[in-house]
Amino acid sequence: MKDRHLLVDVALGRINADKVVVNGEFLDVATGRIRKGVNIAIKGERIAKIGNIDDTIGSETEVIDAEGMIVTPGFVDSHYHIESSRLSPRRHAQLTLPYGTTSLFEGSHEMANCLGLDGVKYFLDEAKDLPQRIYVALSSATPPTPFERTGGYIGGAEAREALQWENVAGIGEIMDFTNLFGHEDRLWSVMEAGLEAGKLLEGHATPEPPEADAFMATGISSTHFTGNREQALALLERGCFLEIKARDSRDALRGLVEAGIDWQMVGICVDDRPAELTRKIGLLDYEMKIAMEEGLDPVTTYQLATINNARHWHLEHDIGLVAPGRYADMLFVSDLEKIKIDKVFTGGEMVAEKGKLTANISIPPAPAYVRHSIKIPKPLTAEDFQVEAPHYDDTVNAAVLPARYFSDDLAPITTTLPVKNGFVQRDLSRDINKIAIVNRHGKGLGVSFWKVGYQRGAVASSVLHDSHNISVIGANDSDMATAVNRVAEIEGGIVVVNNGKILAEISLPIGGIMTDRPLDEVVAALDKINMEVDKLEPSELGEHPVDSQTFIFLTCFPWGIVLTDLGLFNTRTGEKIPAVW
Amino acid sequence: MKDRHLLVDVALGRINADKVVVNGEFLDVATGRIRKGVNIAIKGERIAKIGNIDDTIGSETEVIDAEGMIVTPGFVDSHYHIESSRLSPRRHAQLTLPYGTTSLFEGSHEMANCLGLDGVKYFLDEAKDLPQRIYVALSSATPPTPFERTGGYIGGAEAREALQWENVAGIGEIMDFTNLFGHEDRLWSVMEAGLEAGKLLEGHATPEPPEADAFMATGISSTHFTGNREQALALLERGCFLEIKARDSRDALRGLVEAGIDWQMVGICVDDRPAELTRKIGLLDYEMKIAMEEGLDPVTTYQLATINNARHWHLEHDIGLVAPGRYADMLFVSDLEKIKIDKVFTGGEMVAEKGKLTANISIPPAPAYVRHSIKIPKPLTAEDFQVEAPHYDDTVNAAVLPARYFSDDLAPITTTLPVKNGFVQRDLSRDINKIAIVNRHGKGLGVSFWKVGYQRGAVASSVLHDSHNISVIGANDSDMATAVNRVAEIEGGIVVVNNGKILAEISLPIGGIMTDRPLDEVVAALDKINMEVDKLEPSELGEHPVDSQTFIFLTCFPWGIVLTDLGLFNTRTGEKIPAVW
Repeated sequence: MKDRHLLVDVALGRINADKVVVNGEFLDVATGRIRKGVNIAIKGERIAKIGNIDDTIGSETEVIDAEGMIVTPGFVDSHYHIESSRLSPRRHAQLTLPYGTTSLFEGSHEMANCLGLDGVKYFLDEAKDLPQRIYVALSSATPPTPFERTGGYIGGAEAREALQWENVAGIGEIMDFTNLFGHEDRLWSVMEAGLEAGKLLEGHATPEPPEADAFMATGISSTHFTGNREQALALLERGCFLEIKARDSRDALRGLVEAGIDWQMVGICVDDRPAELTRKIGLLDYEMKIAMEEGLDPVTTYQLATINNARHWHLEHDIGLVAPGRYADMLFVSDLEKIKIDKVFTGGEMVAEKGKLTANISIPPAPAYVRHSIKIPKPLTAEDFQVEAPHYDDTVNAAVLPARYFSDDLAPITTTLPVKNGFVQRDLSRDINKIAIVNRHGKGLGVSFWKVGYQRGAVASSVLHDSHNISVIGANDSDMATAVNRVAEIEGGIVVVNNGKILAEISLPIGGIMTDRPLDEVVAALDKINMEVDKLEPSELGEHPVDSQTFIFLTCFPWGIVLTDLGLFNTRTGEKIPAVW
Repeated sequence: MKDRHLLVDVALGRINADKVVVNGEFLDVATGRIRKGVNIAIKGERIAKIGNIDDTIGSETEVIDAEGMIVTPGFVDSHYHIESSRLSPRRHAQLTLPYGTTSLFEGSHEMANCLGLDGVKYFLDEAKDLPQRIYVALSSATPPTPFERTGGYIGGAEAREALQWENVAGIGEIMDFTNLFGHEDRLWSVMEAGLEAGKLLEGHATPEPPEADAFMATGISSTHFTGNREQALALLERGCFLEIKARDSRDALRGLVEAGIDWQMVGICVDDRPAELTRKIGLLDYEMKIAMEEGLDPVTTYQLATINNARHWHLEHDIGLVAPGRYADMLFVSDLEKIKIDKVFTGGEMVAEKGKLTANISIPPAPAYVRHSIKIPKPLTAEDFQVEAPHYDDTVNAAVLPARYFSDDLAPITTTLPVKNGFVQRDLSRDINKIAIVNRHGKGLGVSFWKVGYQRGAVASSVLHDSHNISVIGANDSDMATAVNRVAEIEGGIVVVNNGKILAEISLPIGGIMTDRPLDEVVAALDKINMEVDKLEPSELGEHPVDSQTFIFLTCFPWGIVLTDLGLFNTRTGEKIPAVW
């Protein structure tokens, strides 16, 4: 508490401030007013005094002129996944601090599925001395469902351990609705540990009544929301704090404005954003502009991104306000509505100016415990991907899935496939290809047939929500093996192969899903991958086939039928489905 | 989590609700709207579902008709002292549930100063199976200041222990400004324990800048507020959650309404209220009516007493809203603005109707550990109260204090007093009387002269904020001894004596400050005490001399000079002052 002693001493005029901010206007997010004549005195990392701070200025005090600026709290993202940027936390901070995000709540289940609690710890380790505050929402989804095997297991005991770690703020993103509503032991043990520790349970997605009631009845406090006004009001009325993803929720924002609601139970978040997209459109600043476009007044919009998110996470004594006792995380904004951020401060230090990083954020080598996370004991061969015919006919029945299948009725997706030498064959003329999910810890693989396109080659990726096993889609078994083996060689990443040749790749050696290489290099590699993939004709996977490949195997939401390293599963019933019969 | 499993099952229509509430209007405090057609399904103690709940009604389901009523959350008092009612927690619940207070945050330092952590534990023990939720704010004030000795000691280690107990919600009422701003070890260790446990620090009173800055810089989150609009806005702007005591803060309420603030950082509380006054005016309902008189709209007023207080204490997943997952603590209100409470429910059970308690709240014998808390080893005698003259003159100088003294300048209160047989004498002609604070744990006493009136007799009380040692004011030493000895005999309480005869008394055997006797009996005893005291002519102690006697020895606020069991102290400097010289 020594740092707080010094704050008291500054406030009472016993010692001088390290820095003061003068001449700016002041956005008081507690009452929702903009005020003049509120200056700010800083000691160490925190704010000591606001208002009339003249008596804190000594000869050593740095005076920062905020003439023409409105001083606001730094932005707090209430629900975020650093992994989605493909960048390590420190590289990610370099990218994102200029957009004003001084604190974020990291979902953590991606890395937890790669590395167990080590994956969670990694964020906390990286955050040390980092001028961006990373709070962790402990993974509730390790494994995401009982239908797949991942690199970690977080049950009640593991959760209780991690909830003691500093900056673990709660339980993240409870999303396995089948098992949530099915009272599944592991998931509920984690939730119980969270409530016992006095921490929050974060939910996922946009359930509607009566699922919205069941969702809140579990003890969950919040969700990151995409949806319409009716869905938003139904969740709010049920006591759910809404972390609105504005660009997917314009109708909800407009509707809440029109309903004239009290906004205290609403915040704003980004959730997932690839680094290259952040560079194009921004982060919370972008979401906030959308909220204002939908009629939300600017002051409330800033509250959503600051005090409201901080209060939701029960951290309003540290972040979300420019006020005594809080970290001196501040933005100088020259235009409130356009969110023109002139300067960004974290812990009293300027870290970005006019969109450019000014902080010196070192990139030390990634710790050994996050490297070498792909552990396939010996290289795979084409034979590993063969599917034996279950009988001696020329054809077999097969469940041929489209990219996402929102039903558990097999009839519409059952077709026949040819058999050759006792093995079931693709039918590329009908865009029917083979997909395998290879357990990245050497525990085997599941194979089935999907209508996803690709006329040649194979694409393998160790980014695979949320298990982060290795998915591979291939027009021939040999390229599938080559692609997976190369993913393993480069410690995880994305690899494009044709005729045995590596056409493009990116190594993501941190947990197999992130890299600490510079952003430009990462973007170039991803661009090359996307270009080469397009040449393989992935006709059924939409505009971003590699991104689709990372998302279509989610088991947490009851789509219907999905492939895991254990085979095909009906996620609604937990029943295993044969690939062919 | 089994109870939450059942809630999920009700929400999803798998099993029926225990009870449903239908036909009422619904106060949605999350968005601040009143809605129709929102019915409520209850399972066990909690709410399972709201909205359309028809599918939860089975033949066993109790249907509660709320026709003509608005259903609101039960009131949550964010800062309260049960002890001020003089009633035990269970007796207090009998009195207060009809006023709609279903949850309260108990300050706990009174009992902690009587009994240490046992005094804190008592509230939690009494709350078991009680249909009023008692959350404890752990005493920061045991002892209140280093200038006095009490029956307990809560430092960092003790705080860390108690913060693990269920329903200990934070650190209560940090009020020793001298030692707060002086970085005193014990107090700051307790605060550190609170922050480390992820709990709130509650402040006290109404500091103004720059003390308001220093106050918030310590990590404190809130204060129970009495003051004007400028003081309110200054604290809010500094990120302080305001628990407004409405009847002492009309200008602040009016001013905040006029300023058009966002009210999310404002709640409402009662703090202290004698039982007989509660019966006359009410509790939060009374404070809320004042807020509405000052222009606050009714819906916001209810938010202050429900969701806002619950969110401040980080307990919005349990209390403060009528929503799935929360305790079914509800009020049926027939007139929102007049706060006509027709029915009160706690945990789904009706506990009061039309102002009458309907719950069966048993009063088991007070546990042994809160009894016999006055431990004076042998009866005192008149000699114990004699003040020796420091020299052989006929008169001495004496600091003769008025009831409250807001200065540390001795000159205005220095007078001469006669000496007889080597002992300094009172001067009743000038209303100068003797006061002693007797350490209730047998560790001696402090004596000095005060200008408080009383022409005869003595009044002793073991209710003495915040040490709860025994204060005795007396016109003669013999009556003083008799009064204190009787207080000890009856295990604490208030005793009025004249000429060696007990004129009136009340026994407060629970910690020496509370009783579990019925309210009517308590009020009758207090009435008798007040009547007999008036006959003794306490000319200088205001309208309520016995109440004044319990408050004028507070050491926590830097009044100036005050008497403790260790003698006279300057509370601003910590310096000890001789009573006579």
